[in-house]
Amino acid sequence: MRYGVLGTGEVGRTLAGRLLELGHEVTLGSRTRDNPVAAQWATAAAGRAHAGTFADAAEAGEVVVNAVGGRVALDALRAAGAEHLEGKVLVDVCNPLAFDDGQPRLDPVESDSVAERIQRAFPHARVVKTLNTVNCQVMVDPGRVPGEHHVFVCGADAGAKERVTGLLTEFGWPAGRVLDLGGIRAARAVEMYLPLWLALFRGFGHADFNIEVHRAG
Amino acid sequence: MRYGVLGTGEVGRTLAGRLLELGHEVTLGSRTRDNPVAAQWATAAAGRAHAGTFADAAEAGEVVVNAVGGRVALDALRAAGAEHLEGKVLVDVCNPLAFDDGQPRLDPVESDSVAERIQRAFPHARVVKTLNTVNCQVMVDPGRVPGEHHVFVCGADAGAKERVTGLLTEFGWPAGRVLDLGGIRAARAVEMYLPLWLALFRGFGHADFNIEVHRAG
Repeated sequence: MRYGVLGTGEVGRTLAGRLLELGHEVTLGSRTRDNPVAAQWATAAAGRAHAGTFADAAEAGEVVVNAVGGRVALDALRAAGAEHLEGKVLVDVCNPLAFDDGQPRLDPVESDSVAERIQRAFPHARVVKTLNTVNCQVMVDPGRVPGEHHVFVCGADAGAKERVTGLLTEFGWPAGRVLDLGGIRAARAVEMYLPLWLALFRGFGHADFNIEVHRAG
Repeated sequence: MRYGVLGTGEVGRTLAGRLLELGHEVTLGSRTRDNPVAAQWATAAAGRAHAGTFADAAEAGEVVVNAVGGRVALDALRAAGAEHLEGKVLVDVCNPLAFDDGQPRLDPVESDSVAERIQRAFPHARVVKTLNTVNCQVMVDPGRVPGEHHVFVCGADAGAKERVTGLLTEFGWPAGRVLDLGGIRAARAVEMYLPLWLALFRGFGHADFNIEVHRAG
């Protein structure tokens, strides 16, 4: 499968690297064509790894992964181009994290979410929100955390969620540990989990943790 | 121990009932002295069960439990009276849930929390936020949900958190399943978990669930 990964930060590089390991062809996209991080990544990985602009990556990918920060996601996707997203599964893993006076803040929060904004701005993309509730190392290697912990998906398109669940299975998340929260509006719920994630991170001093949902019946 | 429980809704009655079962003396407080729900509860439970105003309940309790809705919590506590809260452990289990056009909303959210507002308004109370991440039936009977799931505490006063952890142990939460998130500011994190709780509730169709935090190392 051909993937376009938008974002050359730790999240983008980690996802892109794992997709390569899994045998996929990956274009890592950045704001500019001559981004040295992306170029170095493509050179080091070689073969099935390519670097380019957001538009290059989105065009090349059969599936596109939004791995830029939540506050710049819409700009990055506009640069990628609606025509390169049309009909495609668009996996959104970002969190709307901002820092005001050194304090983490979410923007948007509660009355909207990044994933909903993306879906509204690109109505012909098949947006699936997932993986934002875990650190990027855990995203692609859930075995770093012991136990039968869960990851969430939400989005309007059932076929897209199925495809993303397949990808999550490749990453090491058994399908039974992928919880479908329904439509894209549930992105608010998983984006608002971030403060609890941060509180746990501060308490544990590392990011190798995740939650399991237990239920009766 | 003598407990004052503020709020005659399902949460207040459930907590008050369980405290009675555990052998404690409980005053269930409401806005008015002649609240029929509270009066009936006290009559049915008899002996160690009493009904009264918020002020009666707060005065009677060595420990006070805020079990009214998050949006009326400050009003209820003002009616209870700062003089009846001074130096006491004040257990806040509420969520700042509101409904706008039928949609659940949090108020406050993100830049503040109900528990912080309470602590600011009553600086001589020893506020501990806990239990708001589970349904009230699960609060007092965690065995309804299988697995080693967790509950959180946060607050400025270590001694108060220790005392609340003791109460949680009485409810059936082993101390090892009580996660301390630090100061009262972490109340934002657990209050913002509510949308995820609601999404899971909608998915499962019942409230007998909770999360376990797994971590490496």
